[in-house]
Amino acid sequence: MLLKTLREEVLEANLELVRRGLVLYTFGNVSGIDRGEGLVAIKPSGVPYEELTPAQIVISDLQGTIVDGKLRPSSDLPTHLELYRHFSNICGVAHTHSEFATAWAQAETPIPCFGTTHADYFHGPVPVTARLSASEIAGEYELETGVAICRTFAKLDPRAIPAVLVAGHAPFCWGASAAEAAHNAVILEYVARMACHTLSINPESRPLAHELHDKHFLRKHGRNAYYGQVKTQ
Amino acid sequence: MLLKTLREEVLEANLELVRRGLVLYTFGNVSGIDRGEGLVAIKPSGVPYEELTPAQIVISDLQGTIVDGKLRPSSDLPTHLELYRHFSNICGVAHTHSEFATAWAQAETPIPCFGTTHADYFHGPVPVTARLSASEIAGEYELETGVAICRTFAKLDPRAIPAVLVAGHAPFCWGASAAEAAHNAVILEYVARMACHTLSINPESRPLAHELHDKHFLRKHGRNAYYGQVKTQ
Amino acid sequence: MLLKTLREEVLEANLELVRRGLVLYTFGNVSGIDRGEGLVAIKPSGVPYEELTPAQIVISDLQGTIVDGKLRPSSDLPTHLELYRHFSNICGVAHTHSEFATAWAQAETPIPCFGTTHADYFHGPVPVTARLSASEIAGEYELETGVAICRTFAKLDPRAIPAVLVAGHAPFCWGASAAEAAHNAVILEYVARMACHTLSINPESRPLAHELHDKHFLRKHGRNAYYGQVKTQ
Amino acid sequence: MLLKTLREEVLEANLELVRRGLVLYTFGNVSGIDRGEGLVAIKPSGVPYEELTPAQIVISDLQGTIVDGKLRPSSDLPTHLELYRHFSNICGVAHTHSEFATAWAQAETPIPCFGTTHADYFHGPVPVTARLSASEIAGEYELETGVAICRTFAKLDPRAIPAVLVAGHAPFCWGASAAEAAHNAVILEYVARMACHTLSINPESRPLAHELHDKHFLRKHGRNAYYGQVKTQ
Repeated sequence: MLLKTLREEVLEANLELVRRGLVLYTFGNVSGIDRGEGLVAIKPSGVPYEELTPAQIVISDLQGTIVDGKLRPSSDLPTHLELYRHFSNICGVAHTHSEFATAWAQAETPIPCFGTTHADYFHGPVPVTARLSASEIAGEYELETGVAICRTFAKLDPRAIPAVLVAGHAPFCWGASAAEAAHNAVILEYVARMACHTLSINPESRPLAHELHDKHFLRKHGRNAYYGQVKTQ
Repeated sequence: MLLKTLREEVLEANLELVRRGLVLYTFGNVSGIDRGEGLVAIKPSGVPYEELTPAQIVISDLQGTIVDGKLRPSSDLPTHLELYRHFSNICGVAHTHSEFATAWAQAETPIPCFGTTHADYFHGPVPVTARLSASEIAGEYELETGVAICRTFAKLDPRAIPAVLVAGHAPFCWGASAAEAAHNAVILEYVARMACHTLSINPESRPLAHELHDKHFLRKHGRNAYYGQVKTQ
Repeated sequence: MLLKTLREEVLEANLELVRRGLVLYTFGNVSGIDRGEGLVAIKPSGVPYEELTPAQIVISDLQGTIVDGKLRPSSDLPTHLELYRHFSNICGVAHTHSEFATAWAQAETPIPCFGTTHADYFHGPVPVTARLSASEIAGEYELETGVAICRTFAKLDPRAIPAVLVAGHAPFCWGASAAEAAHNAVILEYVARMACHTLSINPESRPLAHELHDKHFLRKHGRNAYYGQVKTQ
Repeated sequence: MLLKTLREEVLEANLELVRRGLVLYTFGNVSGIDRGEGLVAIKPSGVPYEELTPAQIVISDLQGTIVDGKLRPSSDLPTHLELYRHFSNICGVAHTHSEFATAWAQAETPIPCFGTTHADYFHGPVPVTARLSASEIAGEYELETGVAICRTFAKLDPRAIPAVLVAGHAPFCWGASAAEAAHNAVILEYVARMACHTLSINPESRPLAHELHDKHFLRKHGRNAYYGQVKTQ
C-alpha cells in the first residue's frame, strides 16, 4: 500500500517536469523516499514520460538494491541515494537538464541571489560543485556526483538551499517530498532564466542585500511565515 | 452587488496574467478598488489560479482591515493600499514576477524608452525604486515597498508612467481599473523583453527622441487621441 | 465581389500574424490593394483579432479617403498608402511590433545577412530608416514614416528586399499580396531572432559572401528558381 | 512494400521536426535510405508539412535519379546523397534551419562541448564547415555543400559526431535511421540553445574535461552502455 502511494507520488512529480517544460524526450528523473521503510522510488531509465505507469516506477533500498520493479532504474540513482543518505531531512530529489539551470551549471557559475523570487526559495546563491577528478569519473561516476554535491554542502544547509548545479552537467534539486523537489526544479529554472537576463541587462548587477534576502526567505519559511493560507513548516 | 462585480473584475484581471504567461504557480496578484466605498478587492495569498473563485477574492478597506472574505489576502496587500492612498486616480494594481520585467528590476536599471511600443504606454523610462534600508525591511516591509514606490514618483505622474520596478524584486503596474493594470503588466513584460534584446544587439542603443515619445503617447492618450475606435480618456 | 475577396484575403493575412505569434493584443496590421480599382483594404484600428470579420476591414482609396466600412482604419494607413504609391509592384503591406524585428529597429541596426535563411527572402541587409525630424513628427507623422521608408529605398529594390526597420519603431514588410506581406513579416521575425543570437555567440560574425547570398536568393526567385513544386515569378 | 515502410518512416521523421518546433513553414527536410536497394526517400520541396502524405515522399537512387514519386524532391537532395555515399553507416539525414543551431552556423563557431547533455550525443565539438568558394557556389552548390561536410569529417567519425554546422547556412544531422537523424536534430537544437546561454552567462566557460566527455558518450553508446532499458548499438 505504501509503495503504491509513493509510486504514484513519484510518477506525478515526474510528470510535473513535463507539464512545466523542463524535459526533452526522456531527460530528467524524480525520486521519493519512504524514510520509515528506507525505500526509494525512482523513474526507470529511458522510458518516455507519456507511457510511464506507477508500476514502472522502480523501488530500491538505500544501498541501490532493486527491491521491486521490472525495469532498470534511472542511471542517476546512485546520486539520488547519496543525497538521501547524507541529507537526512529530505524526502524527494529531482534531476533535470532544464535549459537555463543547465546553462549555469555548464558556465560553472553559482546563481547569485539577484531578487526576491530567488530568496523566496533559496537562502543564498545556488552553488556549483567542483569538477570531478579523472579517477572519480572512471570510478563510480554517479555515486561520485552525489559525493561532490555533499562536499559542496559541507558548510551549507540543504533545507535552506534545496538545489545545486553539478559542474558541466545539470541541476539536482530536493525537498520534503518528490512533489516539492520537482517544484523546486521548476522554480530553479525560472530563477536561472531571470538571472541570465539580469546579467545580460547589467553585467554589474549586485546580489540582494542580505536583510532582504533573509526577509523573503523567512516570509515563506520558518516559524513566522505569513505567505499562503496555512503556515508551512 | 457592487462587491460582486468588483470581485469578478479582479478575478478576471488576475486570470489575464495567467493567459498571457506572466505567472508561474501562484506568483503575482491583481487588485481593484471601489473608490466610492473605499474598498479594495485582492487575490488571496497562495491560492492556485485555476481554483480561484470570485468569492475567494478578499475585500479590505484602505487601512488593511479585512471586510469580507475567508482567506488571507495576498501578502503584498499593504503595497497595493499605499499606492491607492497616494495615487488618487488609479483604480487597479497588478504585481507580477514576469520574466523580463523582473530581470530589469533585478538589474536595478530603468527601462529606457527605446521605441514607440514603450512610448504608447509609458511616457518616459520605467523607473526603479531605491533599495530599502535594513530598518525598512525589518519593519513593515510590504508597506515600505509602497512608500518607496511613491517616493520614486515624487516628481513623476503615475498616470503617464503606470509602472515601476522595485529594486531586487519585481514590477508593480496600475491603471484606471484592475483590467487596465493587468493589461499594463502584459505590455511592460513585452517592452522589457524587447529592450533587453535591443541592448544585446547594440549596447549603445539610444532612447527615442522626446518628440516621437510625446507623439506616440499622445496618439493613444489625452484630448487628441486618434488610435482605436473611440476616443479614450 | 472583388472587395469581398480582397477583404477576406486581408483578414486572413492579419490572422496569420496571430497564428505565428507576431502580435500582442491589437498590435499590427496588414493591408492589400486592388491595383485595378486603386482600392486598399486594411485592418480597422484597435479591434481585437479574434473578433475581426471581413465586413470590418476598411476600404480606402490611395489618397486615404474611406470608400467603404464603418470603422476607423488602422492609424498606420497613411504609411501603407505611401508605400503603395511609390512601390508600384507591391500589393500587400504588413506592419508588426514583433519581438526581435522590433528590437533591431530599436537598436537602429540593419539586420546583416548572416545566413541563407535571410538570403532566401531578403537580397541584402534589412535596412533601417533615418530618424524622423521634429517637424516630420509634428506634421503628418504616419505619412512621413512612409516617406522615410521610400527615402531608405532610393537606391534599393523593394521587391528584392521586401522589408524595412523604421528607426525606434518597428518593421514594415510587403509583397505581391497581403498574404505574402504577412509571410515576409513572419520570416523577418525569424531571421531577426537568429541574427540576434548569432551576434551573441560571436560578435565578430561576418555576413554571407555575396556569391552565396545571390545563389540563395535566385534559387527561390527569378527565372531559374528551382525551389518548391512550381516555378514562381 | 519496403518503399512503403521507408516512406512512412521518413514522413514520420519529418513530422517530428514539426512537433519539436524545429521548422517554420516548409523549412527543413529529412531523408532515409534503404541500403539494400540503394534507394533514398526524401521530403518533396516546398510542400506544407500538414499536407504531407507518404505517397508524396520522393524516391531517388544514390545518383539523384528520381525512381518514384510525382513531386520534385527537396532541393537539398544532392547534399543528402553525398552524405549517404561517404558515410557508409548512416541511414538517415535531417536538415533544419532550427533557431539556435542555425545561429551557431551563422556565427561560424563550432559548438563546444560544455556539458554532459552534449557529450551524451556528440563525442566532441560540433564542427563548422569552411565557407564554399565562389566557384563551388556557382557550380553544383548543393552537392558541394555535401562535399564540404565530408571534408570537415576527414579526420572525424560521423557516427560519434552525428551533426555538422554548414557555415552561413544551417545544421545537417544524421543517424542510423531517419528517426534517429531527426532525433539528433532536436538534441542539437537543445544543445545549441544551452551553449548560447552558457557563453552569455560566462564568456570564459570551459569545455568538459575529456574524461567526463568520454564517460557520458560511452554511457549511452558502445559495448558497455548502461542508459535506458536495452543496450543499444
